[in-house]
Amino acid sequence: MDPRIREHAEIIVDHSTDVQAGDNVVISTPNVAEDLAVALHEAVGDRGATPVHLASESRAQRAYLRATDADAFETPTHTKALYEESDVLIRVRGETNATEQSDVPPAKQAELSRANRPVQEVALSKRWCLTQFPAPGNAQLAGMSSDAYENFVWDAVNKDWDAQRELQAQMVDILDPASEVRIKSGDVTDVTMSIAGMKTLNDYAEKNLPGGEVFTAPVPDSVEGEVLFDMPLYHQGREITGAHLVFENGDVVDHTAEQNEGLLTEVLNTDPGASRLGELGIGMNRDIDRFTYNMLFDEKMGDTVHMAVGRAYEECVGEGRTANESAVHVDMIVDMSEDSLIEVDGETVQQNGVFRFEEGFGA
Amino acid sequence: MDPRIREHAEIIVDHSTDVQAGDNVVISTPNVAEDLAVALHEAVGDRGATPVHLASESRAQRAYLRATDADAFETPTHTKALYEESDVLIRVRGETNATEQSDVPPAKQAELSRANRPVQEVALSKRWCLTQFPAPGNAQLAGMSSDAYENFVWDAVNKDWDAQRELQAQMVDILDPASEVRIKSGDVTDVTMSIAGMKTLNDYAEKNLPGGEVFTAPVPDSVEGEVLFDMPLYHQGREITGAHLVFENGDVVDHTAEQNEGLLTEVLNTDPGASRLGELGIGMNRDIDRFTYNMLFDEKMGDTVHMAVGRAYEECVGEGRTANESAVHVDMIVDMSEDSLIEVDGETVQQNGVFRFEEGFGA
Repeated sequence: MDPRIREHAEIIVDHSTDVQAGDNVVISTPNVAEDLAVALHEAVGDRGATPVHLASESRAQRAYLRATDADAFETPTHTKALYEESDVLIRVRGETNATEQSDVPPAKQAELSRANRPVQEVALSKRWCLTQFPAPGNAQLAGMSSDAYENFVWDAVNKDWDAQRELQAQMVDILDPASEVRIKSGDVTDVTMSIAGMKTLNDYAEKNLPGGEVFTAPVPDSVEGEVLFDMPLYHQGREITGAHLVFENGDVVDHTAEQNEGLLTEVLNTDPGASRLGELGIGMNRDIDRFTYNMLFDEKMGDTVHMAVGRAYEECVGEGRTANESAVHVDMIVDMSEDSLIEVDGETVQQNGVFRFEEGFGA
Repeated sequence: MDPRIREHAEIIVDHSTDVQAGDNVVISTPNVAEDLAVALHEAVGDRGATPVHLASESRAQRAYLRATDADAFETPTHTKALYEESDVLIRVRGETNATEQSDVPPAKQAELSRANRPVQEVALSKRWCLTQFPAPGNAQLAGMSSDAYENFVWDAVNKDWDAQRELQAQMVDILDPASEVRIKSGDVTDVTMSIAGMKTLNDYAEKNLPGGEVFTAPVPDSVEGEVLFDMPLYHQGREITGAHLVFENGDVVDHTAEQNEGLLTEVLNTDPGASRLGELGIGMNRDIDRFTYNMLFDEKMGDTVHMAVGRAYEECVGEGRTANESAVHVDMIVDMSEDSLIEVDGETVQQNGVFRFEEGFGA
């Protein structure tokens, strides 16, 4: 077995979910991640915890979805009982064919999600970690060889997360007490928003592995300006490129896209909250150095910021502040590596991808 | 997908476990049985039931077993909760490598079994089915090509089970009210036992797929004579051949084997019940026409009988009758295709593999 797989398993079990003797652990993997499943069982057993192994197979899921009538999905109360009796949930993603569910009607996916919501709520109340196995379908989606994609995933995942947490804490210290943020990039993007009273969190690979971002919630009606999202956006199996949003009083008042503008319109029209920002994130994992059509990685890419239209994360919303609510949360990314700056309360804190607390700033 | 896989899934879901709308179903499969997992999800969804997909991977299980201290196994209460909230449990076996757990100390296997007993008890209280996917490791164990083994498995499994039930019912009608059974085969085997007051059951592929036997429990102290088990016995990864048992007043008073006699001695010495018979079974699935080192198939082989030392099945033990009790239940098989007979209360009911109710009997 590739030694990086055991390292990956150790980080999941120790750093991300802190598995202890006596814990009940759910290990959910697709078939293609068999090696990581083996390494996880080894690590969980070594810590004196008790695993159960769930299979998350896209082909089986597709078959169930297609065979079930749209109005027949019921909450899987057996899975809910399993989660309720668990302490830690480890979910490994990995696609043999990333378009396996392309012939499942989206309405059925939505019905399944609705039926699963009570299970999802239990899951989110546990110690959990979502991570990625470098599977061929994901490599293909990224346009990479299997070998190069393995290197990419394990470089991003198998890091010194204590050092990464300290790096990111410097940005949290800047944003958490701040009021106004301005993001400027290239000729088009120039947007300001208030984050006054909101909390900035440090994602150092607990619930998401890889981690590598700091993120907060904008005050919903404070966003002014325009943004050109120069990284593509992969939504419901389709790619939106060149998304351009214009904000007034927090609302998107104009939008265009180079490709799949109609899909972008659909997203923004989902509900009132879907045309306001719910998240501002700063990507700080520099081992993620390319876009791979996988938001678990893309939003943490070094030298980027991302903004999500839709739902805010509750834990970012300060006391007495309004959370943006929506059924959707769609992240979109701006490249900040060149001709760009982040200003916080009038002071430049990042320029051309270099932070104020790093060597080379202002050079 | 091979159409025989969908047929297999339909038999599991309709004939064996009678899955109904609203049922919570656990589908447990090894990776190698992915196609059957897909077909099962399709069938379960089509019936309006709700699946959860467990992975039963020998490699992961081995890693957990080896990494865990022998005294550290705990009852997986999360799995127990899952089973408690389920109506149907479908367990598919299939080995990529049938000796995957050959380097796990047997003591750890025993400790895991002990810890899992409360889960197992819940499982047995549900509608359940154990079946086999034709995996390469099982083909290799049988000494067969993958193609030939697929034909073998699906011929044995994808049958008209209503017709098979009716065939077997004729033998149940003979044995159920009977008192004495005599089994004679070749020059050595000649054994008599009482089954008075015991119940004979018809296995037509509900809990075991394939099914294909009728079975009962001997009165423990009634067995007299000797038996040469001319089919090999695969126990704890080792093969016992030519096992020869001599019974007096129900007890094994002498035993030999051509190969691994020591292991046979160990089995018989487990506890007092381990040296008495707990089961007499008549194999009647003629699509199982060869020995494949897999008791799920071997004990149902046409033209065989099997006797198990150890624990009797409770449902075979008539009211007021004594059940043979033991920690073990080890099946051993006698070929009845030639130079053999079964006598029931003094009348011949099978000769050279042909039953009294079949054409060619006594020819």
